[in-house]
Amino acid sequence: MKTYSLGLDFGTNSCRSLIVDLDSGQELASQVVPYPSGQEGMFLNPKDPNVARQNAEDYLFSMRKSVRSAIDRAKEADSSFDSTRIIGIGIDTTGSSPMPVNEEGLPLSQISEFKGNLDAMVWLWKDHSSFAEAAQITDLAAKKRPHFLAKIGGIYSSEWFWSKILHCKNVAPAVFKATYSFVEICDYIPAVLSGNTKPDFLIRSICAAGHKALYNEMWGGLPDKEFLSALDPDLGDLRDRLYTKAVSSNQPAGLLCRKWAHELGLESGIAIAVGAFDAHMGAVGTGVKEGTLVKILGTSTCDIMVSPRDKGLADIPGVCGIVDGSVLPGYLGIEAGQSAVGDIFSWFVHQLVPDSYGRTDDVKFKNLEKEAARQKPGEHGLLVLDWNNGNRTILVDVRLSGLLIGQTLQTQAHEIYRALIEATAFGALTIINRIEEYGVAVHEVINCGGLAAKNPFLLQIYADITGRPMKVSQSDQTCALGAAIFGAVAAGPEHGGFKTVKEAQQAVTGTKEVFQPDRNNHLVYKDMFKLYSQLHDAFGTSSWSGSLSNVMKDLIALRETQRYRRIHARRTQT
Amino acid sequence: MKTYSLGLDFGTNSCRSLIVDLDSGQELASQVVPYPSGQEGMFLNPKDPNVARQNAEDYLFSMRKSVRSAIDRAKEADSSFDSTRIIGIGIDTTGSSPMPVNEEGLPLSQISEFKGNLDAMVWLWKDHSSFAEAAQITDLAAKKRPHFLAKIGGIYSSEWFWSKILHCKNVAPAVFKATYSFVEICDYIPAVLSGNTKPDFLIRSICAAGHKALYNEMWGGLPDKEFLSALDPDLGDLRDRLYTKAVSSNQPAGLLCRKWAHELGLESGIAIAVGAFDAHMGAVGTGVKEGTLVKILGTSTCDIMVSPRDKGLADIPGVCGIVDGSVLPGYLGIEAGQSAVGDIFSWFVHQLVPDSYGRTDDVKFKNLEKEAARQKPGEHGLLVLDWNNGNRTILVDVRLSGLLIGQTLQTQAHEIYRALIEATAFGALTIINRIEEYGVAVHEVINCGGLAAKNPFLLQIYADITGRPMKVSQSDQTCALGAAIFGAVAAGPEHGGFKTVKEAQQAVTGTKEVFQPDRNNHLVYKDMFKLYSQLHDAFGTSSWSGSLSNVMKDLIALRETQRYRRIHARRTQT
Repeated sequence: MKTYSLGLDFGTNSCRSLIVDLDSGQELASQVVPYPSGQEGMFLNPKDPNVARQNAEDYLFSMRKSVRSAIDRAKEADSSFDSTRIIGIGIDTTGSSPMPVNEEGLPLSQISEFKGNLDAMVWLWKDHSSFAEAAQITDLAAKKRPHFLAKIGGIYSSEWFWSKILHCKNVAPAVFKATYSFVEICDYIPAVLSGNTKPDFLIRSICAAGHKALYNEMWGGLPDKEFLSALDPDLGDLRDRLYTKAVSSNQPAGLLCRKWAHELGLESGIAIAVGAFDAHMGAVGTGVKEGTLVKILGTSTCDIMVSPRDKGLADIPGVCGIVDGSVLPGYLGIEAGQSAVGDIFSWFVHQLVPDSYGRTDDVKFKNLEKEAARQKPGEHGLLVLDWNNGNRTILVDVRLSGLLIGQTLQTQAHEIYRALIEATAFGALTIINRIEEYGVAVHEVINCGGLAAKNPFLLQIYADITGRPMKVSQSDQTCALGAAIFGAVAAGPEHGGFKTVKEAQQAVTGTKEVFQPDRNNHLVYKDMFKLYSQLHDAFGTSSWSGSLSNVMKDLIALRETQRYRRIHARRTQT
Repeated sequence: MKTYSLGLDFGTNSCRSLIVDLDSGQELASQVVPYPSGQEGMFLNPKDPNVARQNAEDYLFSMRKSVRSAIDRAKEADSSFDSTRIIGIGIDTTGSSPMPVNEEGLPLSQISEFKGNLDAMVWLWKDHSSFAEAAQITDLAAKKRPHFLAKIGGIYSSEWFWSKILHCKNVAPAVFKATYSFVEICDYIPAVLSGNTKPDFLIRSICAAGHKALYNEMWGGLPDKEFLSALDPDLGDLRDRLYTKAVSSNQPAGLLCRKWAHELGLESGIAIAVGAFDAHMGAVGTGVKEGTLVKILGTSTCDIMVSPRDKGLADIPGVCGIVDGSVLPGYLGIEAGQSAVGDIFSWFVHQLVPDSYGRTDDVKFKNLEKEAARQKPGEHGLLVLDWNNGNRTILVDVRLSGLLIGQTLQTQAHEIYRALIEATAFGALTIINRIEEYGVAVHEVINCGGLAAKNPFLLQIYADITGRPMKVSQSDQTCALGAAIFGAVAAGPEHGGFKTVKEAQQAVTGTKEVFQPDRNNHLVYKDMFKLYSQLHDAFGTSSWSGSLSNVMKDLIALRETQRYRRIHARRTQT
C-alpha cells in the first residue's frame, strides 16, 4: 500500500506544505499560505531597520490552512490518495529565530501583559538589532573560549541565539524576567504538534543548537555557565532552563497529538521528526552526500556540505558552522553562505535601472539579462564586490559594503547587472576554494532555490566562473522535500517509511539540467577572479597590504581585448 | 563716444557671438548658432568611439550667422548701438583641435580628393584615437627630454597636437603627405578674418603652442627636430613648416579684411586679437588675477590660475601645463582640470536613474537634488572616485575608471548622485592642494560655466568640502567675454579699447553670488577626504602600498553617526 510523507517548510513570509509519494518519489501536492499578520508576516520598527519579529500564532494559522489545502489538492491529483496513509511529518523553519516562552511553553506574546510587545515575539533570523551583543560574545569567546569560535568560522553573529537573548535582556528586562526559556521555531512547531511544549521536556534540534547556540558535545553541550555568566549573570541562570541534549532530525520529536491531528485532518500518532533549519533540510531534499555541495540560491545563499564524522575535519576559518549531525546523521554538517545574492539583483533593479529597460521590475530583469547575455566576459570592464549586506563566508563581517569599479561614461545598467551576477559567482568560488583548501573535496555542485529554478543565465555564469558543471535540483521545493524525507525516516520502515536518510534520498531526490562551463570564458574569468580576490583581500582583511594600481588598468585592458574578440568573431562569421 | 568689442567663442557644438559695451561693461547682445553639419557638429566613427572630427566650414557658417544676428539684437536692445563702433574682435576655440592645410592654408577637407575623409578634417579636442602615439611621445620624452614633460605635468596626452599629427601620419599617410602644415582652430579663425591664412605667415597662439605642442622659449620653441624625427622622420620635416614664434592674445593677429568685414557686417581694419583656448579666455572673462583660481565647471572642468613671470615657479607635477603668457601677458598660465564632472552626472542620470525620479533627465536631476539635499554629509555611507573618463589632474592618466564604494541593499539613486558630486569636489580639492603645495596660494575661487550658473546645490557642497567660499562669475558667457576683452586690448586705447587686460577686466568682469562653507559639514568632509585620498592613491598611483580594511568600516561608522545626528537634531527641534 502506498505511503506518503508531509513536509512543512516555514519560510520568512509563508508556510508551505508538501505531500510526497514515498513509492514513486512524486511530489503529489503542495500549498503555500502567507502569514496573516504584520508586513508579509514581519513586525518591523520604523525607527530601527535592524528589527524584524514574527507572531508565533501566524505559523499555526498558516500551517493549518496549507496542510488542509494540500490534502485537498492531493485528492484532486490522485483520487486514490488517502490522507490516513501519511505516515510522518518533517518540519524545517528559518533560524536562528528564538522566542521567549513561559514554563508551560506558551509564547510570551500570547500573555496579555506582553500582547503587541515586539520584544516578546519571535526574533526573526534577519533581526540584526543585537550587533553590539554579538561583538561582546565574540570578544569574550576570543579571550576565554577560542574553541567556541573555531567551529563557527571565528565570529559570533548578531543573527544568532545568544546575541538575541542578551539583547532582549538589555532592552526589554521585563520580557526577559517573565521568560522561563527561549525556544527556536524549529523546536516549537514539533513541540506543538506532539503536544509537548514544556521547555524542560521538548526536543531540541542539533541543527539550531550546533549552528547558532554554540552547542557541542565536545564541551558538554551549551556554553558553560561561567562563560554565560560573564556575559550576564542572568544568562548563566537561563542555561539551567534551556537544554542539555540536542538531536538529529532522523529522530522523532514525538507523535502527532489528537488535537492537531484533528486540526490538520491527519491520523493521530504518526511520527514527527525533530525540526531543523530550512537550508539544512533543503540540502537533504537536493540530494546532499559526501562530495556534493548544495547551493541554495535565493535572496541570500546557503551552501551546505557534509563530511563523514569518522574522517575527522579541521576547523575551516570563515565557514559559518561545522556541526555533527546537523544535516545528515553520522556526518558533520558544514554550512557556509553569502549574505546577499538575489537581494543584490533586486536592489539594483529596483533602485538603479531606468524604465528604458521596462516598466516593471520583472520586465527590467528580462531585458537586462537579454542585453547582458550579448557581451563577452570582461567586456564591460567592471568588477563588483558583492558585500551590500556584508560578507557571511569567508570574512564573517557585517561591517562591509558593496563596491563597483571600472565604470566609464558609457557604462550601461545591463553591464552592471552582469557584473553583479559575476560578483556573487566569485563569492561562491571563494567559498568553494576555502572548503577544498581544508581538505573537503567538492565533486559536484547542485543548485536549488528560487534563482536556480528560474535563472539559467546566472547558472551558466556560475559554471563559467567556477569551471564546474552546475547541476539543478529536480525539485523546486527542496526544503519541504527534505522535511518530508525526515518525516519518512522518523516514521521508519515499519510504518512504510525509510530506515536511513540515504535510502529516502534515493527514492525522492534527483537533478534535472546541467550547465557545463565554457572553457574560453573560464580562462577570462580566471583573470578576473584574481582581481576580485585582490579587492576582496584589500578591503576585507586587515592582514593584506599592497598596491592596487594594476586593477583599473587590467580591467580596461581586458575590456579592450574582449571587445575586439567579439567584433572580430562577428566579422569572421559574416 | 561708446565703443564695443566682439567676442567669438567656438565651442564643441556651436559658435557664440557676444557684443560687449566697453564703457558700462554691459553684455549688450549675444547669439549662439549650432554647427550645421555632422552630429551636433561632430563627425564620428561608429566603429571607433575615440574618433571625433569637425568640418572647418561649419565654423565660418555659424560665425557669419551669429555675428549678424548679434548685431541685430544689439540694435534691438539699444537703438543708439552702432556696429561701426565695434573696435576689436577676440576669438576663443576648443583645443587642441588641429587640422591639416595645404600651402595656401586651405583645409585639406575642402580639396576634392579628400572630401568626406574624416582624417582630413579638424581633429577635435576630444578625439582620443591617438592614445598609442601619446604613449610613444611620453616614453621618448621621458628618456630623452624630461624637461618637456616637467611643464605638462609628466604625461603627453592623446588629446594633444603631436599625438594627433603622428596618428594621422600612421593611419592616413595620403592625407599626411598632401598636408603642408597643421593649424589649430584658434589660429585658423583669426587667420581667415585677417585674410592671412598661409601657414608660413599666420600668427600662432602661445596658449595652443605652449599647452599642447610642447612649445617653450626655454628650449627654442617647438620640440627640436632630432626629437621629432625620432618619433617619425616626417615629423622632423614638418617642424620646418610649422612656426618658430607664438604670441599672447593681447597682441593683434591682424586686421579684419574687407571680405570678412562685408560678410559679418563690420568695419574692415579693426583689430583681431590672437586666438586662445576657451578655458583660458574664460578665466580672463571671469576675472582671473594672481591668487584667483577660476574653475570652469561644465561637462569636464578646467582650472586656471596665473603667477607673475618674475616670481618664478617650480614645475607642479600632475598639472596639465604651465605656459608663459597663455592666460595673461607677463604671467605664467597654470592649467589643471578634471576629465569629467557634468558628464558623470549626465551619465548617471541617463543610465542609472529609474523613472520614479521623473520621466525626463531634467526632472530626474531636480528630484535627485531635492532628495540628496535632505541628507547630512556622509549619511549615505558612500564614496566615489570620479574617474569615469580618467584623471587629468593630478594623476594625468586616461587608463583609470570610476569607483563606487559603500552601497548597501538600501542605497538609493539620490544618495549616489550626492556622492558623485562630492567626488568631483574631492577631485577639485586635490588640485587646489597640489597647486598650493608648490607655492601658488589660492586666495579666492571663482566659478563659471554651465554648472556654476545653474547648480547652487553643487556649489554649496564644493564650499563645504574645500572649506572655501565659492564665488560665481557675474557673466554666464565668460569665454566670449574674455575674447571680447582681448579684442578691446588688441585694438588699444587709441581706438577706444584698453591698454592692459587688467584694465579691461576691471571694466567688464565681476562676481555675483558667494557660497560660504558650513563649518560642521566641512569637519565631516575632512574625514571623508582622507578616505577619498586613500582610495585615490591606492588605485591611482604605483607608489602607494598599504591596507584598505578601514575604508568600508569608517564609511559605515560615519553613516551611523550622521544618521543619528540628523534624527537627533530633528527631535530636539520638535
